Amino acid sequence: MFDNQNDEEENSNFHLPKMKFSKDELKTIGSLFKKRFTTISKTVVTNRIWLKSAKSSSCHVLLTFPKNTSYDTIFTIMDRILKAGLIVNVKQHKTSSTVGFYITASYERLLQGAEDLEIKKIIKTNYGGGIKEFIFDEQEFYENIENEDLFLTTQERQSIIYDILYQIRCDNNDEQIIVNDKKVPNGRRLIFWCQKYKIISQILPIHDQDDLKELRKNWVFSLFSNQPLDKVCKYFGIKLTLYFAWLGFYTKSLLIPAFLGLAMWLSMGKDEKWDSIFFLVLCSFNLIWSICFNDLWNQRCAELSYKWGTLDMKENLLQDPRPMFKGEYKLNKVNNKLEPHYPEYKRALFRYLITFPTLLAVTGLTIAIMLKMFDLQEFFNHATTNKLLPELMGLTNFIPKMIYANIISFLNSVYKRMCTWLNDKENYREQTTHENHLIVKIVLFQFINSYLSLFYIAFYLQDVGLLKEQLFAIFITRQLTGNIKEAIFPYIFENLKQIKKIDRVAKDEKLDIKPDQELIDNVQRLQRYATKFLEQSSNLNTEKADNYQEEEIPSELSQPEVESLMPNYPDTFGDYLEMVMQYGLMVFFAPAFPLAALFTLFNNFIEIRTDAFKMCFLYQRPFGQIVSNIGRWQDVIETFSILGIIVNCGLLITFGVIQKLLPSVTFYESVAIVIVVEHVFLGFYKVLNYSLPKLPRWIIVAKSRLEYRRREALRTLEMNEMHNIKCSSNN
Amino acid sequence: MFDNQNDEEENSNFHLPKMKFSKDELKTIGSLFKKRFTTISKTVVTNRIWLKSAKSSSCHVLLTFPKNTSYDTIFTIMDRILKAGLIVNVKQHKTSSTVGFYITASYERLLQGAEDLEIKKIIKTNYGGGIKEFIFDEQEFYENIENEDLFLTTQERQSIIYDILYQIRCDNNDEQIIVNDKKVPNGRRLIFWCQKYKIISQILPIHDQDDLKELRKNWVFSLFSNQPLDKVCKYFGIKLTLYFAWLGFYTKSLLIPAFLGLAMWLSMGKDEKWDSIFFLVLCSFNLIWSICFNDLWNQRCAELSYKWGTLDMKENLLQDPRPMFKGEYKLNKVNNKLEPHYPEYKRALFRYLITFPTLLAVTGLTIAIMLKMFDLQEFFNHATTNKLLPELMGLTNFIPKMIYANIISFLNSVYKRMCTWLNDKENYREQTTHENHLIVKIVLFQFINSYLSLFYIAFYLQDVGLLKEQLFAIFITRQLTGNIKEAIFPYIFENLKQIKKIDRVAKDEKLDIKPDQELIDNVQRLQRYATKFLEQSSNLNTEKADNYQEEEIPSELSQPEVESLMPNYPDTFGDYLEMVMQYGLMVFFAPAFPLAALFTLFNNFIEIRTDAFKMCFLYQRPFGQIVSNIGRWQDVIETFSILGIIVNCGLLITFGVIQKLLPSVTFYESVAIVIVVEHVFLGFYKVLNYSLPKLPRWIIVAKSRLEYRRREALRTLEMNEMHNIKCSSNN
Repeated sequence: MFDNQNDEEENSNFHLPKMKFSKDELKTIGSLFKKRFTTISKTVVTNRIWLKSAKSSSCHVLLTFPKNTSYDTIFTIMDRILKAGLIVNVKQHKTSSTVGFYITASYERLLQGAEDLEIKKIIKTNYGGGIKEFIFDEQEFYENIENEDLFLTTQERQSIIYDILYQIRCDNNDEQIIVNDKKVPNGRRLIFWCQKYKIISQILPIHDQDDLKELRKNWVFSLFSNQPLDKVCKYFGIKLTLYFAWLGFYTKSLLIPAFLGLAMWLSMGKDEKWDSIFFLVLCSFNLIWSICFNDLWNQRCAELSYKWGTLDMKENLLQDPRPMFKGEYKLNKVNNKLEPHYPEYKRALFRYLITFPTLLAVTGLTIAIMLKMFDLQEFFNHATTNKLLPELMGLTNFIPKMIYANIISFLNSVYKRMCTWLNDKENYREQTTHENHLIVKIVLFQFINSYLSLFYIAFYLQDVGLLKEQLFAIFITRQLTGNIKEAIFPYIFENLKQIKKIDRVAKDEKLDIKPDQELIDNVQRLQRYATKFLEQSSNLNTEKADNYQEEEIPSELSQPEVESLMPNYPDTFGDYLEMVMQYGLMVFFAPAFPLAALFTLFNNFIEIRTDAFKMCFLYQRPFGQIVSNIGRWQDVIETFSILGIIVNCGLLITFGVIQKLLPSVTFYESVAIVIVVEHVFLGFYKVLNYSLPKLPRWIIVAKSRLEYRRREALRTLEMNEMHNIKCSSNN
Repeated sequence: MFDNQNDEEENSNFHLPKMKFSKDELKTIGSLFKKRFTTISKTVVTNRIWLKSAKSSSCHVLLTFPKNTSYDTIFTIMDRILKAGLIVNVKQHKTSSTVGFYITASYERLLQGAEDLEIKKIIKTNYGGGIKEFIFDEQEFYENIENEDLFLTTQERQSIIYDILYQIRCDNNDEQIIVNDKKVPNGRRLIFWCQKYKIISQILPIHDQDDLKELRKNWVFSLFSNQPLDKVCKYFGIKLTLYFAWLGFYTKSLLIPAFLGLAMWLSMGKDEKWDSIFFLVLCSFNLIWSICFNDLWNQRCAELSYKWGTLDMKENLLQDPRPMFKGEYKLNKVNNKLEPHYPEYKRALFRYLITFPTLLAVTGLTIAIMLKMFDLQEFFNHATTNKLLPELMGLTNFIPKMIYANIISFLNSVYKRMCTWLNDKENYREQTTHENHLIVKIVLFQFINSYLSLFYIAFYLQDVGLLKEQLFAIFITRQLTGNIKEAIFPYIFENLKQIKKIDRVAKDEKLDIKPDQELIDNVQRLQRYATKFLEQSSNLNTEKADNYQEEEIPSELSQPEVESLMPNYPDTFGDYLEMVMQYGLMVFFAPAFPLAALFTLFNNFIEIRTDAFKMCFLYQRPFGQIVSNIGRWQDVIETFSILGIIVNCGLLITFGVIQKLLPSVTFYESVAIVIVVEHVFLGFYKVLNYSLPKLPRWIIVAKSRLEYRRREALRTLEMNEMHNIKCSSNN
């Protein structure tokens, strides 16, 4: 629903926003480091700047324009926003010399929007209780409707405002908005079009300081307590919270394999036969654990989404299409709304004739290149150990690795771009379907990228020692540095960037360099228009509209302005990808490296808090998104569990487990035994997966009950209708 | 919903009713054969007897009692049936010297019952059209309601009457019904209890001669035209029709593999290399064909069940529990009906602690016995060829086969009894769930029974010649004789049985042996009571009640009486089992025997008509049952498709296909190649199965639309309710 990114910026969905510093900037950063050793204390200062910034309970969403946007364009957009019933405060942004719209809405307008978004709210107990979609005309029935602050959470308000903005459509009067000599097409979504052509640079929801403070205390820094998921959900929305819920559940589930793995590791190395038995035990345990983990998570997930009111998601065709969905405008036969239609066969043709072959070709190429690089590495290793090459301080060993890393990183970025482009071309109607298909495509490549070298070592070189070494390196080094790379470094860099910008403003003020007078004039003209518009349309809340007029304290930056300098949170995609790949690593190689689960547990224990840290310190607040489960990631995890069985059985051969246990068996017979074991395990997985319940009993009852009431309601309604027809035809 | 069988008679669900003739009977049959060479013409005569028999459009369901049931018991039951609003005619059955209730109901009572059964009917176009559950109070809105004969099909009438009978509950007044000194327990379903304790011997719906005639002509004997599925569905109900629809679809789908197989077979045997390539082609084709077949059938099945109004089945908890479901009576939280409850954990405990181990033990034992028998056979074969044993006219070779067949048949019957008992103990709530679990259990054994010897030959003996020989024998001999065994023989035997009984009646009449005078008196007393009851309760249709009083022509048997002599149709279970096992045979061994598909096609082409023949000539008419798909059979078929890949890959090794294609490859390497091929095929199956659409687009739209309207209806209704609460609290 919230396509923050437009299709030209697809990349930012998958990795951290790139921080490119110009040479001058790098110098500045360097000097900052040199001048002050107390960088950390400085970042805390920035943080304090933000906290001190002007409270803006009335600003929910900030909309910023890029530098040099023409006054007419800004005016037209503001006019349309005002006409949509929102309240706009215009403010000059000193750090970037642009204009920012501080958008909020009256309670009434928010409630109207809540109906459009079908936000579920509690019914007063004397009217029967329960949770129902909000209906504006029937507001009296809802709990807490009288209390403006209690009824809608800040996250809901922001979603409503975003939805109102998103609903604005271009019309013929928007002639002022011209980009590259192209006028806004009639009927298109104004905001979306403007974002696409970079007339609007950012739309971001603003943090609520009180709630954020609480989350920082009880979530980020409460290392040993349960995550306050309800509060997180209320503040960040369900999609993000389900990620953290999954991560927490995964981490807790790791306790048992971690303990078992540790016990095995401690008692290993004494007797080859026992080692082999441990290996077999770990393989079997792996299988049972992964089935239980997935089944229990499915149940937990259903419980959470039931609690948060999204389990009963509408069927795909009842959902609104995503903004990027293209097609001929036709009536949706289901709910009679006019919306784009795209024929299924075109999508299928594209998918099977273009996407499939392309991705297969690229992954095939990648595999080929990687295998060649491994060969090269082998060659160099061989040459080095036999002293056939001059030893340039170990460089000979390092060269192929460097080449390899660069090629992979290049292929990775090409592949990601390609996937996103192909997925956009496949043109899925719903946001979830779109994301699900993207997940599958990206995971395909990441799978090869992450595991091919390990598979190569395990099954081609069959080098047990090297495999263990590699696993040790991955589980310890990579995981621990990962958190630092992901959260601590960006935090420091981003703070440095902010410091720089704020410093510049301060310097400008010290030097008494006045900002662009034209800009100031424009801001005042726009603000005057907005105030007048509000006064004319109603007598409501005009004092709020003046909020920002009053507090013109030049040396203090507004909280929204500070937040607009922070990086945009690039969706849960990257976080899931990291965790899923780690899950794969564990189910594939745990028997070969019994400590895998323990290290993973330890890493995830920290990961939860660093990811929470990212949300509460590093990034802009994201818009809340509605989902009912973790989507295709669940399928990926389950597929990894199945592949885990196959890989584990492969390891049985590599490690010669069967032959150690049954020395009389030939190699060929041991392979036959492993193949039988594999098929039995796979069959067992199927059977267990099939016979375990997918939903907790009480949720099945609750769903059936709702279904029953819907059926009965339609029956009653239709009978009434027929009676009406009869009465009218009788009269 | 229609548990025709009670739990003591579980066997008859799975095979044809056993035809045990006493010695005297066998003599009679023998003499009949000897005396008249024109047996066939005689069976046609019986058939004519039936057609000539008194027309009974007013008798829908026949209920018969066993010999020697006391008058009081019969009277009590009749009284309860009359009080339930049904019309009963009592008639003496000459062939079995018992009493038969000829049950029908007034149109009004049928319509009331139609509401209880939630039968879907068409709404008049001027009231909006569409199909909706029938509601008695709103009958004016339904199409054809004025036309008694058009509105309800005979199948629907019979289902309604069965449902009314089934709803009758025992009360304290039923003191006359005593079995083994046990009184009818209060509150239990009378009819169900009586069937269980054999106080009622049969409840059967009666054929409609006109419709049956048409079906015989257009279905059974129209070998080359499409099956008239709509008419079959109208007459026999959806469950049975879906079986025939599936069988027809399967047969048509076989055309392509049959053609391909024939082409391969014709061009085989010239060059070993080409044979191996054909083998590979058949394996791959097998895979793709089975995926397409299953996917397309799923779509077709959805279309059919949409057309016949069952796609939109209620969730399990909204369905009525099956009659045999036991448990504590509690309120169903979903629809607030009082019904038995059985805790899930008890079922799970039973399943995992008792069912699973028991079945595994028995199947394990069976496998062990079968393998031992194969060994024994080997030993005898060896002994015979080496002339170590005296050759008793080839008997030495025959002995182990005979022992084997007897053991298997014994194990089979033990296993079936055990499965049914275990499944009953697991106590599933819904009829479909119950059947689905039974299917899985039975298939497990049948799988071993049907395929183990072939697997033994293919993978243990690795005897390609013997395998081909066996497949040839199975596909040609067994399949063709199967149809004769299944339909033609039983038809002749059943007709002989009928002839015998009818002959005896005729003889008695000739000899002027009057039937039991007490019985005649009882029948008259009962009939008088029934007539009086009807006259008292209403002035409706009394002439109908007298129908059978009038036509007391002794030498002519009533149609219902003739039908009561026919065997009971033992559900679709056996038919599906046969076809599914045949499907497995084909997907497992088609590459080894390219003509498999052709012979299967030919067999099924006949099978459709012999099965139809069974329904229209051999068996009693069954009650219609409502399902939305072929249930767990679909899963069994899909599992067989997956197993097919594994078996096919195994055959690649047995037949040495890889080594023939790549002579430089060692045996070990060829095994490795096959394993890789297998995994690629399995992965490919998964991917294709995952990405193919499960339902046709238009059905998704229709389902979503219904869902949307239900949601909207509940919303409207709830808002109205809240307004009502508000109004009443204001006043």
